[in-house]
Amino acid sequence: MRWREPPAIYLEDCGSPVERSSYLIQLPTADGGSYDVIHDASSPAAGDCCAQQSSARHNWEMNYQEAAIYLQEGENNDKFFTHPKNAKALAAYLFAHNHLFYLMELSTALLLLLLSLCEAPAVPMLRLGIFVHATLELFALMVVVFELSMKMRWLGFHTFIRHKRTMVKTCVLFVQFIEAIVVLVRQTSHVRITRALRCIFLVDCRYCGAVRRNLRQIFQSLPPFIDILLLLLFFMVIFAILGFYLFSPNHSDPYFSTLENSLVNLFVLLTTSNFPDVMMPSYARNPWSCVFFIVYLSIELYFIMNLLLAVVFDTFNDIEKRKFKSLLLHKRTAIQHAYRLLITKQRPSGISFKHFEGLLRFYKPRMCTRERYLTFKALNQSNTPLLSLKDFYNFYEVVGLKWKAKRNREHWFDDLPRTAFLIFKGINILVNSRVFQYTMYTVVAVNGIWILVETFMLQGGNFFSRNVPWSYIVFLTIYGVELLLKTTGLGPVEYLSSGWNLFDFSVTLFAFLGLMALAFNMEPFYFIVVLRPLQLLRLFKLKKRYRNVLDTMFELFPRMASLGLTLLIFYYCFAIVGMEFFAGVVYPNCCNTSTVADSYRWVNHTVGNKTVVEEGYYYLNNFDNILNSFVTLFELTVVNDWYIIMEGVTSQTTHWSRLYFMIFYIVTMVVMTIIVAFILEAFVFRMNYTRKNQDSEEDNGIVLEKEISKEEVVGIIELYKRSSAAPETSQLQKIVLQMDKYGQMSTMFLGRRSRTKSDLSMKMYEEEIQEWYEEHSRKEESQAPLQESASASTSSLKPLSLRQRSQTVI
Amino acid sequence: MRWREPPAIYLEDCGSPVERSSYLIQLPTADGGSYDVIHDASSPAAGDCCAQQSSARHNWEMNYQEAAIYLQEGENNDKFFTHPKNAKALAAYLFAHNHLFYLMELSTALLLLLLSLCEAPAVPMLRLGIFVHATLELFALMVVVFELSMKMRWLGFHTFIRHKRTMVKTCVLFVQFIEAIVVLVRQTSHVRITRALRCIFLVDCRYCGAVRRNLRQIFQSLPPFIDILLLLLFFMVIFAILGFYLFSPNHSDPYFSTLENSLVNLFVLLTTSNFPDVMMPSYARNPWSCVFFIVYLSIELYFIMNLLLAVVFDTFNDIEKRKFKSLLLHKRTAIQHAYRLLITKQRPSGISFKHFEGLLRFYKPRMCTRERYLTFKALNQSNTPLLSLKDFYNFYEVVGLKWKAKRNREHWFDDLPRTAFLIFKGINILVNSRVFQYTMYTVVAVNGIWILVETFMLQGGNFFSRNVPWSYIVFLTIYGVELLLKTTGLGPVEYLSSGWNLFDFSVTLFAFLGLMALAFNMEPFYFIVVLRPLQLLRLFKLKKRYRNVLDTMFELFPRMASLGLTLLIFYYCFAIVGMEFFAGVVYPNCCNTSTVADSYRWVNHTVGNKTVVEEGYYYLNNFDNILNSFVTLFELTVVNDWYIIMEGVTSQTTHWSRLYFMIFYIVTMVVMTIIVAFILEAFVFRMNYTRKNQDSEEDNGIVLEKEISKEEVVGIIELYKRSSAAPETSQLQKIVLQMDKYGQMSTMFLGRRSRTKSDLSMKMYEEEIQEWYEEHSRKEESQAPLQESASASTSSLKPLSLRQRSQTVI
Repeated sequence: MRWREPPAIYLEDCGSPVERSSYLIQLPTADGGSYDVIHDASSPAAGDCCAQQSSARHNWEMNYQEAAIYLQEGENNDKFFTHPKNAKALAAYLFAHNHLFYLMELSTALLLLLLSLCEAPAVPMLRLGIFVHATLELFALMVVVFELSMKMRWLGFHTFIRHKRTMVKTCVLFVQFIEAIVVLVRQTSHVRITRALRCIFLVDCRYCGAVRRNLRQIFQSLPPFIDILLLLLFFMVIFAILGFYLFSPNHSDPYFSTLENSLVNLFVLLTTSNFPDVMMPSYARNPWSCVFFIVYLSIELYFIMNLLLAVVFDTFNDIEKRKFKSLLLHKRTAIQHAYRLLITKQRPSGISFKHFEGLLRFYKPRMCTRERYLTFKALNQSNTPLLSLKDFYNFYEVVGLKWKAKRNREHWFDDLPRTAFLIFKGINILVNSRVFQYTMYTVVAVNGIWILVETFMLQGGNFFSRNVPWSYIVFLTIYGVELLLKTTGLGPVEYLSSGWNLFDFSVTLFAFLGLMALAFNMEPFYFIVVLRPLQLLRLFKLKKRYRNVLDTMFELFPRMASLGLTLLIFYYCFAIVGMEFFAGVVYPNCCNTSTVADSYRWVNHTVGNKTVVEEGYYYLNNFDNILNSFVTLFELTVVNDWYIIMEGVTSQTTHWSRLYFMIFYIVTMVVMTIIVAFILEAFVFRMNYTRKNQDSEEDNGIVLEKEISKEEVVGIIELYKRSSAAPETSQLQKIVLQMDKYGQMSTMFLGRRSRTKSDLSMKMYEEEIQEWYEEHSRKEESQAPLQESASASTSSLKPLSLRQRSQTVI
Repeated sequence: MRWREPPAIYLEDCGSPVERSSYLIQLPTADGGSYDVIHDASSPAAGDCCAQQSSARHNWEMNYQEAAIYLQEGENNDKFFTHPKNAKALAAYLFAHNHLFYLMELSTALLLLLLSLCEAPAVPMLRLGIFVHATLELFALMVVVFELSMKMRWLGFHTFIRHKRTMVKTCVLFVQFIEAIVVLVRQTSHVRITRALRCIFLVDCRYCGAVRRNLRQIFQSLPPFIDILLLLLFFMVIFAILGFYLFSPNHSDPYFSTLENSLVNLFVLLTTSNFPDVMMPSYARNPWSCVFFIVYLSIELYFIMNLLLAVVFDTFNDIEKRKFKSLLLHKRTAIQHAYRLLITKQRPSGISFKHFEGLLRFYKPRMCTRERYLTFKALNQSNTPLLSLKDFYNFYEVVGLKWKAKRNREHWFDDLPRTAFLIFKGINILVNSRVFQYTMYTVVAVNGIWILVETFMLQGGNFFSRNVPWSYIVFLTIYGVELLLKTTGLGPVEYLSSGWNLFDFSVTLFAFLGLMALAFNMEPFYFIVVLRPLQLLRLFKLKKRYRNVLDTMFELFPRMASLGLTLLIFYYCFAIVGMEFFAGVVYPNCCNTSTVADSYRWVNHTVGNKTVVEEGYYYLNNFDNILNSFVTLFELTVVNDWYIIMEGVTSQTTHWSRLYFMIFYIVTMVVMTIIVAFILEAFVFRMNYTRKNQDSEEDNGIVLEKEISKEEVVGIIELYKRSSAAPETSQLQKIVLQMDKYGQMSTMFLGRRSRTKSDLSMKMYEEEIQEWYEEHSRKEESQAPLQESASASTSSLKPLSLRQRSQTVI
């Protein structure tokens, strides 16, 4: 796979592009499309190379930029109708698409959300004056206005109006603005449920793309979910009527005394939260009445609820596949768009390195020259100097690789003197030996048993004695020695490249900090001591299934985190609504008239000479500030005994409050079902994948190998010198120097990145993907004639399909 | 697909079989295998047809019988090593394989199980003297001994010893026998936990094959389940240690005072059963301590528990497929065995109708001659008079079809006089019209709302007033008219063939009975009135997804029932153990020293002049007799507030009792996870199936069409007359008469059966099945030479592989 041709091809690089960036079109024309005019005008100039070099370079820069934007859009799954259409839009687009802007977006959204900590029912420590927080809010809203105006500039008014999410955001912004001003003017907070909508600002952030995807998935799963939910509610109503008829004659049964009670209690029964209690009065009267409850629970809880999961799981699977497909095709289209902007008229069959390099300068500014060239080489599968469209399709897979020169030396200590080498080699062999590993496992196991026994012996004594237990020191010493041996034996870089070693390292470090805390009596850090048992997790490395499970866990982590964030956003909305309606309604001894009075009781008996405090504690589950609300909502999510919270609040307000709790239950049920479906899908997918690829066991991500010869490097340096971009070649020259030093004619480079879900999907659906591609190109072909006629008549700037373009040019 | 050849081929039917039934081999021989000797001896007799007819017929009968046994073994998934090997074994086999014997087995097992109703902690109404129930038990055990001895006769001692399930049963029987005698002698019951093993007798019943399959599946899913369970318990221990260190300094927190408490409470927290309570004391002290609980629940409940489901679901899927595969191949082998016994030396390429008919006489004695012939014709795909092996492979799919002559007339009233015909035709059109259907839906919906409003208005009044409400009568009249119209319009047979109509019919009937009950003041039937809202279920016919879900529900019903039965068997074991240890330990006001005393309290206050009863009711959840135990175990299955039951019992016994409850929780968790996985699998499979076969929408089971000409019928009659089996031909003659009457030359017959899971799997795995077959036959080929050499040396009677046999014969 080495090129023996000299890199002369890189020099012949200034043809005019087949297609011109749309940002160049500024001439107002009377007839035809402005694009075609420009195109024709630049056509004759294509012959004399390097004649209008400066203008041509400017044109090419524009093309690079637009191609990079297309590729970014493909990566981020932005629809192409939001593609910036002219130079003005481009400026706004570039302004709105960089990490600084994204950070501003994110911090504004977070500021708005965090304001709820300080507003009216505030966390005591963080309370702010109305003037202060309203001003802060207005400021944040102004920033959002600024962001939106930038977006409008970039999208243009028409697209802006058409973009639903942005429109919703605008409306919410408008409402928030007015309300903030009203608060400032009146100097008092009114009922502001609309604050719940603030999370839209967070959802719209560029960095919260995963949350948006989750939300979309949740909404897509809703229709079948609602169908089954109706079935569930239907049975609930039937059973409520039955239960009312059967049990209301029993006056000692408060659960079925009215139809409403009957309904509410069967709803709660669905969560099993009141289970044996709701049955007991009727069961005490007639033992056979348990049949009613057993049948109800069997149908609703064990059958329909599982059905719900099955339906969501099925929909989820289907959606995941369709999402993957559409993303894949979207990326492909983006690549086609970019490709068309990068080929020249002289060589319409591929992209030369120069243009590829120009693209990468915009797409990945941080990438060094060496990596750019390696990416180009990795993409180039044919031995021609140009990158064909087929090669270019792999762009997204290859561009993420991190390239490193392949070391000839195996260990970090290979260059050391003989004696040192032998010592380190010995340590290396020791550290890699099975005996060492199993010894360490034994130590960890002994440590675990020790901790357990030690803890068991304590039995509530004064266990934070100030002298450090000797066992702690012994085990910590062993771990320290292990850490030292491994670091020296493997080299620090290789040692820390494994996730497990990193885990060991941090746990040992924590244990050491804990020792310090104990030795110096630092009270606030005592919890670190308590993290010691985590060391035991290492034992799970021993079995393959655990390794699989834990690996999958780490792979899933980002998605899980985004799902958690999605749940938190729902929490936020409900917390705001809860605070507006239920702040301060529950307090000790508040609900003496309700059936759950006991749980809210707080009594100070004096029995003999001792004061006995009888605490129900449930008054702590309130909506008095946003942190409390979050904890309360978590308790509602776990659903056990949630009816106590519901009944407490209901007894202090109206019985319509139940609606809030029931709706919250259903919403969390949806999200939780999705989470379960997601975990199921991910694991089953992963296991199927492992089953399918049992032979190719290695799982260290995607690895690619490329060799670069000295001539090539020199060629590239030449190329750069010619285009007067001298500072960038220093790294390349270092490579040449190194090659000279070791007398090599070429260097091997390794490209590496971790495997993503998309890679796995690619491999799983291998066969289907080909079909999708064919179907997609067929569809494009059938649409192309239409498009052309449209562009001819209305001079729309929509790029033509690739296939057609190449036909018209050649 | 009609044969124009005369059925003369049926006459040429008395060749000698290629292979002889193993029951015929009784000659003791000195050299070689007895089989080969017989085979050679009968060989020359093959030439003169019908010479030794009587003996030949006897031989053939034996072959038919053995082939039928092979097919039965294939159907029931009995391994072939239990195949009866000689005439004596055959007699025992036949004795032990008929419904009378099965029923005896079942009723003995049930009797043994039901004895627990009357033994020591008996249901009050059913208490029997020790002498009575011990004698009953001994009697039942004697019957089991008899069954086992029959089985031993059939299997032979060696196979009997090798058959694990039977051996376990024998051991259990032995123990039970001794214990029963001890009870009889001592006239008092000792601690008999072994009674829990009685359910083995039920599991071993022929009719409980589904339960056995479920149990096997549960045990196969156990290894991965246990792995993840260990992970779960590991985290639990770590968190218990952490929790103990963090919260035990707080003396108002009883939940973490010792390590044991900490462990138990975190175990209970896993079921969420004590959730907000366990957190409250520490939360009241330091709000941030909620983080501990949130992290614990997120890891254990929301992650690892779902992981458990994922792993079980994955294993389940895998097992289902492997089970289907092995069953399929087993059936195929059975068919090969049977085929080899049915072909003649003269025509080794297929089975003639005579032999096929002989087989069916043993395999399905109830099948009439017409059906046998139709089955033969349906199997025969080639137009030759013989059934090739390839045709014979479809045996199991075709033999279950129910055949019916295809009526020429469309409606049942086509033969009626003109006026009547027109009237009925009108009704038919009306009944089938959309307007009629939607009118009925509207009526049902109005009825539903009516019932809801009516019930809501009652509000605990005296709603069982003796006069029947007029709305009830009106709606019932409408339903009655609808039923009448439908029955007359469609004909009663067609009307009742639809499940939905059957449902309508029974609900209307119940409503009518309810009306009667109301009108005649029959108290015990008032619950029928209450079933009225079930009528509303009809509304779910409207949407396709519901129809799908409900259809799947009905398809799943048998499997669900068997899973429920499996769960009940576990319940039985735990109920017996619970009764032996905990009978009578909880009673009102029993647990005043425990933390759950309130739930067991039963106090009679006298406030002013009113008696107020404060009831905790939990003393009702006891193990005082087997019915109570079942209810208690169901409550433990639902897991809400199960710790109250556990703590109550624990406070009255030792803290080791917790082990019983925890083990029960884990066992039900396994079974429940399997049930969820099963429902998931079944639904996802079904939905995939529907998605794959969207075009072929018709879903009225498997339908096959076959035409029989008059000559064929006459030919068969001839054949039967020749073999002097005259009584069987009467039905065939009726067909001929009918054909003559209508002047037809042939009659169309429709074979129909409902679709089973196996049919769906066949279609889903279509491609893979072919691979399995090939792999299977390859494996057989490679094993065959070994087998042959084995049979040659030891004269084992193992049948040779088919392929080889045909090679040696031809």
